[in-house]
Amino acid sequence: MKIDHLGIATFSISESEKMYQRLLGHTCYHYEEIPDQGVKVGFIQLGDQKLELLEPLEDSGPIYKFLEKRGQGVHHVAYKVDNIQEELDRLERDGFRLIDKTPRKGALGKWVAFVHPKSTDGVLTELCADPKMIEDGD
Amino acid sequence: MKIDHLGIATFSISESEKMYQRLLGHTCYHYEEIPDQGVKVGFIQLGDQKLELLEPLEDSGPIYKFLEKRGQGVHHVAYKVDNIQEELDRLERDGFRLIDKTPRKGALGKWVAFVHPKSTDGVLTELCADPKMIEDGD
Repeated sequence: MKIDHLGIATFSISESEKMYQRLLGHTCYHYEEIPDQGVKVGFIQLGDQKLELLEPLEDSGPIYKFLEKRGQGVHHVAYKVDNIQEELDRLERDGFRLIDKTPRKGALGKWVAFVHPKSTDGVLTELCADPKMIEDGD
Repeated sequence: MKIDHLGIATFSISESEKMYQRLLGHTCYHYEEIPDQGVKVGFIQLGDQKLELLEPLEDSGPIYKFLEKRGQGVHHVAYKVDNIQEELDRLERDGFRLIDKTPRKGALGKWVAFVHPKSTDGVLTELCADPKMIEDGD
């Protein structure tokens, strides 16, 4: 498994994007709203990895709560997998506490599932897979 | 700039390493103590990136304080640069708040310098460069 992206909670994607342009020389190449999660996202590509800037769409949802509690900062670490359901089943058998027992559609059309930070030493962990990786297996 | 590693604060490298072996299938390939920073580190390689597990050596120092305040979790994000002093000078001119205005020796013999999270939207940010990258320029 390799790192796919870092999720970074921010009060404002447009402000953080300006900061990252000055810091790293890159802006977002893609924006998306995920109303289910009450969040808007912007992606910055850095080689094979991405930063996923996460801004709340409304005064509720996980990112709003995270910002209220901890302020801006790293929200999750995402690893790319081939067969996401197989990995989730393996982790559950191994005693990891899954937030999502089956993958759901996330940004960029990917399949995503979260593992609770209580079982991953404080790091909210996401598994993600390319859309075709599930559809091919149908 | 690309992500070089994620620094992850943990109460115990040996316990976290066991968890990461179950999660990702990898253990640490290198351990090191950095008494200056009151910290012991263990590195897990994931493709071109690394996880740097950080455990306090004593009841003081930045990692001890981080754990006391926030618990286990992502401590910093490190980006690899070619000329670290040039990047630091550029960032300082651009208004970033530098913790280290000149690089210092970090783990793996690298040159490292930190940028304050107040100027990077809550993410403690490290720049790091291979040893030769400075020595070649001498």
